[in-house]
Amino acid sequence: MLTLYGDRDSGNSYKVELVLTQLGKPHRYVVIDTLKGETRTAEFLAKNPNGRVPVLEIDDGTYLPESNAILCYLAEGSALMPTDRLERAQVLQWLFFEQYNHEPNIATARHWLRAGLLTPEREYAFAQKRLAGYAALGVMEDHLERHRFFVGERYSIADICLYAYTHVAGQGDFDLARFPAVEAWLDRVRSQPGHVAMLKD
Amino acid sequence: MLTLYGDRDSGNSYKVELVLTQLGKPHRYVVIDTLKGETRTAEFLAKNPNGRVPVLEIDDGTYLPESNAILCYLAEGSALMPTDRLERAQVLQWLFFEQYNHEPNIATARHWLRAGLLTPEREYAFAQKRLAGYAALGVMEDHLERHRFFVGERYSIADICLYAYTHVAGQGDFDLARFPAVEAWLDRVRSQPGHVAMLKD
Repeated sequence: MLTLYGDRDSGNSYKVELVLTQLGKPHRYVVIDTLKGETRTAEFLAKNPNGRVPVLEIDDGTYLPESNAILCYLAEGSALMPTDRLERAQVLQWLFFEQYNHEPNIATARHWLRAGLLTPEREYAFAQKRLAGYAALGVMEDHLERHRFFVGERYSIADICLYAYTHVAGQGDFDLARFPAVEAWLDRVRSQPGHVAMLKD
Repeated sequence: MLTLYGDRDSGNSYKVELVLTQLGKPHRYVVIDTLKGETRTAEFLAKNPNGRVPVLEIDDGTYLPESNAILCYLAEGSALMPTDRLERAQVLQWLFFEQYNHEPNIATARHWLRAGLLTPEREYAFAQKRLAGYAALGVMEDHLERHRFFVGERYSIADICLYAYTHVAGQGDFDLARFPAVEAWLDRVRSQPGHVAMLKD
């Protein structure tokens, strides 16, 4: 059976749980509390030397880190991953966009606010993250004004990946009301069969 | 013919050029000078609304952004991308590691130093990038002490991706002499057939 090592407040962990659930893959969830330093223990670092959740343990005992690599691994051969060569590359395009332009800004701003980590020396970086986070939401809005989903007009792991931290962006003090196409898309993602909510929303 | 829109000083552009060259794919290179704001013109934003290089223009006129998505698109079916399902996920694992843990720290530190962008208000962020960049190099060193290449003991786009900004990390004031396994791997990458150097090294 697959084992997901994750944190219940981590959107990166949630996106893996959502894919596992929607694909009907049996799994167990081992909670790793990042705020308690549980990603920095010798035991966890043996699973992922980069010290981050999520990590997927595969049946043969291999540990696979990086949420979006896990999404690709799980979705291969399912309706959540296209078969067309260009559409597959476009799914990856949005997955890399999410990890470079979206998550470090929107998820980190949310984390700093929720965990009381917005120290004075981080004020400048926080302001930069707000600008960059709003820019990322603008790129999504522009795309979703013309498309129902991110790739091929079908629900895929590109949508799941971007949903994870977009739907809780308000917790990072981002105002989603400025992005009506994004809000309509969030509703479309929520209405997919087998959708489960992120805990602590 | 494929067209690569890139900046000659960008490792993200270089990695695409290296794959195109090693796969023997004819292409033309259109220089976009990011320091002159050429990624922010209306003409360029029509190609990539996210305003970044590289972008690959495919024969049908489609524009594909995100360097690592382009690498996957180009390498599919070649020796630079494994066929085994787990190895493919491990290639993606290192590609996402590069964009999240490596590039924003090592490439950005290099860029700030080279372009005179290390303003006083960025000093704190610069110090954080140095710590995180060294941590990323440490993760690479740990892996390369036990492996010749990043995935499956064979040269792949995971190596090309990580080579791009690692081999110029010294320009970001990172001391690679602390990472002998990384230095030996850089030599192995340089010795691959069809290797071309990055301009302005």
